[in-house]
Amino acid sequence: MTYTLVLLRHGESEWNAKNLFTGWVDVALSEKGVAEAKRGGALLTDAGVLPDVVHTSLLRRAITTANLALDAADRHWIPVKRTWRLNERHYGALQGKDKKQTLDTYGEEQFMLWRRSYDVPPPEIELGSEFSQDADPRYAGEPIPRTEALANVLVRMLPYWEEEIVPDLRADKVVLVAAHGNSIRALIKHLDGIDDATIAGLNVPTGIPLLYTLDDDLKPVTAGGQYLDPEAAAAAIAAVANQGR
Amino acid sequence: MTYTLVLLRHGESEWNAKNLFTGWVDVALSEKGVAEAKRGGALLTDAGVLPDVVHTSLLRRAITTANLALDAADRHWIPVKRTWRLNERHYGALQGKDKKQTLDTYGEEQFMLWRRSYDVPPPEIELGSEFSQDADPRYAGEPIPRTEALANVLVRMLPYWEEEIVPDLRADKVVLVAAHGNSIRALIKHLDGIDDATIAGLNVPTGIPLLYTLDDDLKPVTAGGQYLDPEAAAAAIAAVANQGR
Repeated sequence: MTYTLVLLRHGESEWNAKNLFTGWVDVALSEKGVAEAKRGGALLTDAGVLPDVVHTSLLRRAITTANLALDAADRHWIPVKRTWRLNERHYGALQGKDKKQTLDTYGEEQFMLWRRSYDVPPPEIELGSEFSQDADPRYAGEPIPRTEALANVLVRMLPYWEEEIVPDLRADKVVLVAAHGNSIRALIKHLDGIDDATIAGLNVPTGIPLLYTLDDDLKPVTAGGQYLDPEAAAAAIAAVANQGR
Repeated sequence: MTYTLVLLRHGESEWNAKNLFTGWVDVALSEKGVAEAKRGGALLTDAGVLPDVVHTSLLRRAITTANLALDAADRHWIPVKRTWRLNERHYGALQGKDKKQTLDTYGEEQFMLWRRSYDVPPPEIELGSEFSQDADPRYAGEPIPRTEALANVLVRMLPYWEEEIVPDLRADKVVLVAAHGNSIRALIKHLDGIDDATIAGLNVPTGIPLLYTLDDDLKPVTAGGQYLDPEAAAAAIAAVANQGR
């Protein structure tokens, strides 16, 4: 008995294109992101991977990506579940800030610590400030963070994985998770048993479905899964790796 | 204690524009339909009517309308429930047929009987034919019809109303139902207690949210509810009434 899980990082957002820290700020997909989402759906169709249920974050860029990809794959009608526990990493006080300016202000070492360390979060966001979510009705009553490192994302994501996603897999459903760079990295870390240091070097390209076949212990049959467009995924990952050079 | 229910008929579809009988054929919104859906969301925002949960049919034109309207109203993140019981009336053997040709072939009397009688359905659709849904995975295991009159729509819609929508209303949620001309007419007939003859003359315009405030017995406080753009709704209803003249 194996289970089928598909991870899909949202397409490019308006703020990806503007080089701003986004986190939980609820920006829309860019035109390029819309095209990526539709192509993600076409890749599902081409591979014959037909989701039976979709889990999304509460953020527009993941929700729209799921909507567009599923429509393109003729699976727009499947059940939908949403949770803040699949949201992007909360970027704390950096949300809404320009990445280049932040680098110039704080220096390379601090900047990279916030971006890539496993457990050092940025400073907490100020309650009531422009890019804070404390008054957002979608999180009312939820124990939401004011900043997060990847370690925090893993901790708040796992209960949802265990309580909502695993039961769908065990019911033999093909599960699509439409989420974000860091919530997907956290899930990959958990699935593939990647250590705290190694996960820093792992990047997930936008809009390319990542297919995991899981065994009865929910361990990947193939470590790292399989991108439905492996060449495009490798190229996108290489481009990110070269960004900092 | 009152409850808030919003009914939203999908925007114009590609087949509305082509004058074909659609029923359960899963066509997309036209460009005009996309614009109508977005405007529907803006009307929700302007009226301060913010859905807490959305119920849709399994058909793309209602699902896309809900997605676009909720995104425009900044409520894209709310829980979603879907059911074939909110689908459009199944148009039987007429699905995919040109309305004008059907009128010419069968004559005015038979044509109007199929379109507007309360309980005379068109002939059943042939299993395995081009516009049949018998092999469609979204209906697997469900007791779906091969043709329907409005009376049949009411009968298959009501269990979902009672079991899924009413509990959301009783939980004090603002409920959005994104559906179709005839599934919404069936629900209005039930809510307002409209008799079998009178319902024939009731039309629901596309893309304009219809707001019902319901009392503790789930009876409308104002019969017929209130369109969020009453002038546009009245104009659209008058245009339909004049079509046959």
